[in-house]
Amino acid sequence: MKCSRCGRPAFAKFRRHNAAFCEECFDLFFERQVEGAIRRKRMFTRDERVLLGVSGGKDSMALWHYLHRAGYRVFGVHVFLGIGEYSEKSREVVTAFARSCNLPLTVLDIQDFIGCSLPEATRRLRERASCSLCGSIKRHILNRFAFEEGFAVYATGHNLDDEAATLLGNVLHWHVDYLAHQDPHLPSPHPKMTRKVKPFYTLTEEEILRYVELHRIPFVPEQCPLSQRAKSLDYKEALALLEERSPGTKHMFFLGFLEKGKAYFARSLTPPELRECQRCGMPTTQEVCSFCRTVERLKAKEVKNHAHSRRE
Amino acid sequence: MKCSRCGRPAFAKFRRHNAAFCEECFDLFFERQVEGAIRRKRMFTRDERVLLGVSGGKDSMALWHYLHRAGYRVFGVHVFLGIGEYSEKSREVVTAFARSCNLPLTVLDIQDFIGCSLPEATRRLRERASCSLCGSIKRHILNRFAFEEGFAVYATGHNLDDEAATLLGNVLHWHVDYLAHQDPHLPSPHPKMTRKVKPFYTLTEEEILRYVELHRIPFVPEQCPLSQRAKSLDYKEALALLEERSPGTKHMFFLGFLEKGKAYFARSLTPPELRECQRCGMPTTQEVCSFCRTVERLKAKEVKNHAHSRRE
Repeated sequence: MKCSRCGRPAFAKFRRHNAAFCEECFDLFFERQVEGAIRRKRMFTRDERVLLGVSGGKDSMALWHYLHRAGYRVFGVHVFLGIGEYSEKSREVVTAFARSCNLPLTVLDIQDFIGCSLPEATRRLRERASCSLCGSIKRHILNRFAFEEGFAVYATGHNLDDEAATLLGNVLHWHVDYLAHQDPHLPSPHPKMTRKVKPFYTLTEEEILRYVELHRIPFVPEQCPLSQRAKSLDYKEALALLEERSPGTKHMFFLGFLEKGKAYFARSLTPPELRECQRCGMPTTQEVCSFCRTVERLKAKEVKNHAHSRRE
Repeated sequence: MKCSRCGRPAFAKFRRHNAAFCEECFDLFFERQVEGAIRRKRMFTRDERVLLGVSGGKDSMALWHYLHRAGYRVFGVHVFLGIGEYSEKSREVVTAFARSCNLPLTVLDIQDFIGCSLPEATRRLRERASCSLCGSIKRHILNRFAFEEGFAVYATGHNLDDEAATLLGNVLHWHVDYLAHQDPHLPSPHPKMTRKVKPFYTLTEEEILRYVELHRIPFVPEQCPLSQRAKSLDYKEALALLEERSPGTKHMFFLGFLEKGKAYFARSLTPPELRECQRCGMPTTQEVCSFCRTVERLKAKEVKNHAHSRRE
């Protein structure tokens, strides 16, 4: 197998591009994809301070590595979720990487924000899917951190597989409001909310894994143990089946949505009126934001559980 | 396993309805689904002459049986495609059923319209997928027949699985024009074009198969041998995977599209200007309709192939 670009021996083949690359040309391909995404979607410049959410998984670690290497002003932030060994490992990976590359990193403990670990929160609020609960809590914590620390932009390592799976879920349910919003660049809707970007939205999981292997970037390979029954995994599996039969399906689906589909939903959208939460001051559409309401419910359940265990 | 409606022994379970039915209650369920579809979408009345396309497959045979039994004025039409044994069998099944139930049936031979069989046409026009070619030819033949014979409405046996698969294909490609149109009731866009309806759009393949088994309705179980590599089969497989994990997914996807999604695409649609084809007089957006252009290309290829074989 020869590199489609330079003819030297290739180290990996990419069916959707109908191409094979040697290590050097793959790196160039990868760089062009990320730089193209950053430029096309006007994500950020080399002068702006970019806050990057780092979970310790391959995507965020690859993006951290890439942005640092490419000379961007990147600052890592990690939320410690308290999911046993999985979270311990994740924190170890991100702190070790920051130390070895001399990169700025802040670790925030979910306990300091909601009063307990994520597994404890999912136990108390059984009615909510853990991924949705975790997402909503992290969103608040990171929004607030980005605002308070004055970051211009918040980046995440979401890749093409993630975005296509989210899109499939939104389409299967015809969540038209989400369809109007889904984008690798979400502009700031309020002075207290940093804009959000996803520089890896054109790259597949497989391509990112190759990058991580190539550069020997440390990462936590395990999936979060709480996400076992996440529907997004089903959507990824269905898309993988279609991609296998017709390489390029995910790319066509998500990039086609951005080019052709999204406008139909965005057109009829009235932006929600945002005001400041009476408890925490962060932007919300209601009197009290969903994060503060979640924290209240967590506290109420804690009291109940204590009362309950006293009775036993 | 007991019938969810009457408590007698059930003969089949339907996960998406979280119900099991005895034979009698299943028949009632089936009737309610079809009658609900016909009424909700104002498909046709008991006074109107309904032309039904019958391929010999389980869906059209079930619909034929149902409409006859329910007292509708149904007229069968079958297009003989000349696909070897498969087509012979299909013609046998539909003619035998019409005879045994004393139902009107017209058999049209594709040869009389395009000058050759479908397999020969796909050989001559290799660049076109056979399902797309067959669909476009049948559409023309049946449109013309329905118009010339003065039918109020043309019905087909397309089911929920078919519609959800078509929708998934349209969404994956963001075929926004098709998304604006896809509907179980397509109103007539021109006096020469009969409206089209799909009374089975809320029923799954599995449910229709149960109906066919229950009433011992004869049908051709084989898939068309030319459709082996049809993408719609991949879409059905992907949806089957999601349905297995979350029963009701197909229903939610397609009916949700009709209720919530479709309007976004239909809103910005300007209906195409239809005029009459210079060759055949049927409605088209161009000077010569796609059917007549296909026939011309088929003839040109025939001449070429003859010239080619003379040289050999």
